Amino acid sequence: MLDPVKVGILGLGTVGGGVVNVLQRNAKEIANRAGRGVQVTHASVRDVSKPRSCPTDGIVLSEQPTDIVNRDDIEVVLELIGGTTRAYDLVMKAIANGKHVITANKALIALHGNEIFAEAQKVGVNVAFEAAVAGGIPIIKAIREGLSGNKINWLAGIINGTTNFILTEMREKGRDFNDVLKEAQALGYAEADPTFDIEGIDAAHKLTILSSIAFGVPLNFEATYTEGITKIERLDVEYAEQFGYRIKHLGFARCTDNGVEMRVHPTLIPASRLIANVNGVMNAVLVNGDAVGPTLYYGAGAGSEPTASAVVSDLVEVVRTLTVDPENRVPHLAFQPGSIAQKVRFLPMDEVVTAYYLRLLADDRPGVLAEVARILSETGISIEAVSQKEPPEGVNQTDVVLLTHKVKEKHLNEAIKRIEALQSIKGAVKRIRVESLH
Amino acid sequence: MLDPVKVGILGLGTVGGGVVNVLQRNAKEIANRAGRGVQVTHASVRDVSKPRSCPTDGIVLSEQPTDIVNRDDIEVVLELIGGTTRAYDLVMKAIANGKHVITANKALIALHGNEIFAEAQKVGVNVAFEAAVAGGIPIIKAIREGLSGNKINWLAGIINGTTNFILTEMREKGRDFNDVLKEAQALGYAEADPTFDIEGIDAAHKLTILSSIAFGVPLNFEATYTEGITKIERLDVEYAEQFGYRIKHLGFARCTDNGVEMRVHPTLIPASRLIANVNGVMNAVLVNGDAVGPTLYYGAGAGSEPTASAVVSDLVEVVRTLTVDPENRVPHLAFQPGSIAQKVRFLPMDEVVTAYYLRLLADDRPGVLAEVARILSETGISIEAVSQKEPPEGVNQTDVVLLTHKVKEKHLNEAIKRIEALQSIKGAVKRIRVESLH
Repeated sequence: MLDPVKVGILGLGTVGGGVVNVLQRNAKEIANRAGRGVQVTHASVRDVSKPRSCPTDGIVLSEQPTDIVNRDDIEVVLELIGGTTRAYDLVMKAIANGKHVITANKALIALHGNEIFAEAQKVGVNVAFEAAVAGGIPIIKAIREGLSGNKINWLAGIINGTTNFILTEMREKGRDFNDVLKEAQALGYAEADPTFDIEGIDAAHKLTILSSIAFGVPLNFEATYTEGITKIERLDVEYAEQFGYRIKHLGFARCTDNGVEMRVHPTLIPASRLIANVNGVMNAVLVNGDAVGPTLYYGAGAGSEPTASAVVSDLVEVVRTLTVDPENRVPHLAFQPGSIAQKVRFLPMDEVVTAYYLRLLADDRPGVLAEVARILSETGISIEAVSQKEPPEGVNQTDVVLLTHKVKEKHLNEAIKRIEALQSIKGAVKRIRVESLH
Repeated sequence: MLDPVKVGILGLGTVGGGVVNVLQRNAKEIANRAGRGVQVTHASVRDVSKPRSCPTDGIVLSEQPTDIVNRDDIEVVLELIGGTTRAYDLVMKAIANGKHVITANKALIALHGNEIFAEAQKVGVNVAFEAAVAGGIPIIKAIREGLSGNKINWLAGIINGTTNFILTEMREKGRDFNDVLKEAQALGYAEADPTFDIEGIDAAHKLTILSSIAFGVPLNFEATYTEGITKIERLDVEYAEQFGYRIKHLGFARCTDNGVEMRVHPTLIPASRLIANVNGVMNAVLVNGDAVGPTLYYGAGAGSEPTASAVVSDLVEVVRTLTVDPENRVPHLAFQPGSIAQKVRFLPMDEVVTAYYLRLLADDRPGVLAEVARILSETGISIEAVSQKEPPEGVNQTDVVLLTHKVKEKHLNEAIKRIEALQSIKGAVKRIRVESLH
């Protein structure tokens, strides 16, 4: 394998720290996917003496970000400092120096993306920004590549976790806006100055980016109508509910014959829509393409490692481009052919551990349930819930329905065999597996 | 711009016809994204005399698919005939002839992908198969590229529309399995021989593919435990509901210390999970990565144009690879820099058309609602729903809440101004936009 690609990081805060942690933890996996390792050699921080949220062994720390973008040996620069003035200068300098740039900075792209991309195109480097919209959800990739055969009709997104958390709490717990905002700040979901979130500016940055890649128009933050959630009262949330709607803070963009529509505002959505059920700090984007119809992308829109997930995936993409033949840039099975595990053990069902739903037809007499429970207990299976209905007049058999806790399938099979042998049980025990999908 | 890339299609059935239709309808959009046009020059069909679901002007039809894979001028072959014997031979021949191959054939990839990919890697061509799993949802791309920084812990998918339709109908309408199956066949959601769907084989093909790209293991269909939904009774659906669960036909794969677990079977899922609310023929895949946490991808898993969406997106990817410098393979804003519309009109809010939620504080006396309704009617706004509560004892004002049909924002503003001027209305009218997101 080639030497690792050398990477410099501007900013080792929440996101930068997450990136270093993910790159270290998944180093082998990442190299096997990308065809080459990644090495963070330099990082800039505001104060080198401060404690870090990630290990920094082998990383040269500096308070001078320009040192990093000017180093000859660094091939990829991760811009994770935020803001639109210093970050802009550093990104432009990095591009001018022929470095690929990866950024999580939505404001920078929404406000200066047109110039940045023109410069990158001229120099022949990549500027990747998956992390700028909806954190860990690969929504840029989905629209820009996964739906590239479609004319995108419209898209709608819950693209700010703070406002979604506030609206979710208002609905689920009948709380007031200010009350929830304070909690969100205490939990770290909202900034000390929450203006960017609650006034919709952050969502408008993201919507601006989504609109451009969906409709093929230049980035135009100024044209995005922006309204926050500060005027939403508990009462409105309740009235909406009574009409069968949920209030969500939505970014909505549509391509019409009269022009491109981009707007961020509180929106009533029918409660039955999947996107209306996206709660808490989670994000989701619903995209409507003319061929594919509606598709939805859901996940964590912020946070250290979810955002790092997007940054690192962009990095894998850049490394693949630098390393592999274009025809086989992405390996067919995601991992480089030589690194696909060949001695894999596939688990037989006997060893699979899962919870179960069991339904049995039993004589309707005292003691039957106790017999079943005894067998389950003896085979090490504990019961989560039981339901037994009174049989109708004149019928002397009844359904017993059980949910078990997790158990190895082998033991469950044993228990079922013993239960089916009971005189009081008629026919086969019906079993369906249960997954909580946490 | 370069000459269009020449494409040959094997099979002009449901999916092949959809591909031709999408390529024609979105030709300009696709060329602007890919940097080069696409031209379908040849297609093979079983019977050239039959009517087609797509225009075939300019396409040479033949009953000999080998003619197509052997033509020197064809650069990309789309394999859309299905099956695993003829399709295998044709794909291997196309690869040997140096052609890029795009396929929607899940069985072919699940059963013969290991050999096919090894051959493609050797020759240096791409074999793309986004359409093989979950139709139009770009799930292969999401896992293989969008989440490439993660160790994937597990994934769970509703990846067969037929079984999801049947289970949804059983739950929502209390219908029996056989009854719904017959309807699904009549609607074209299920084949005349539905075995592949209802016995879980189709889902197992897809899960096999997802597991490989998630965990870096060879394709191993044999190791996938497969159980269909034929034994699920209405009663089980009801009991599950009572416990707070939904029964879904789920493909589940996990990477454990003991081995890789791959299983397709009916599964109880807590009703509150987003994936438990994926209904009808829709598909969804939930992926849990160590950095990103849970992400979900939702959309149409089958059908002519949703599947074509995935095939064409793969084609755009191949064309980008053939045409553009690797560093700028995917244009920053999805469309090639020269084809981004520069004279774009962005719609001012005055012209935006949407429905509204209105809340007004009104005197609690007869005739107030009539006055409001008259103003709305005079400004061309029709009312979808109204709710007016009895005020508490001693209070003589009450909330009137209205939902309007769609209206231009300018007219709504006019109406609000007039309503606010009414003596019987106190303070400002509260307004929130409503989107049905159909």
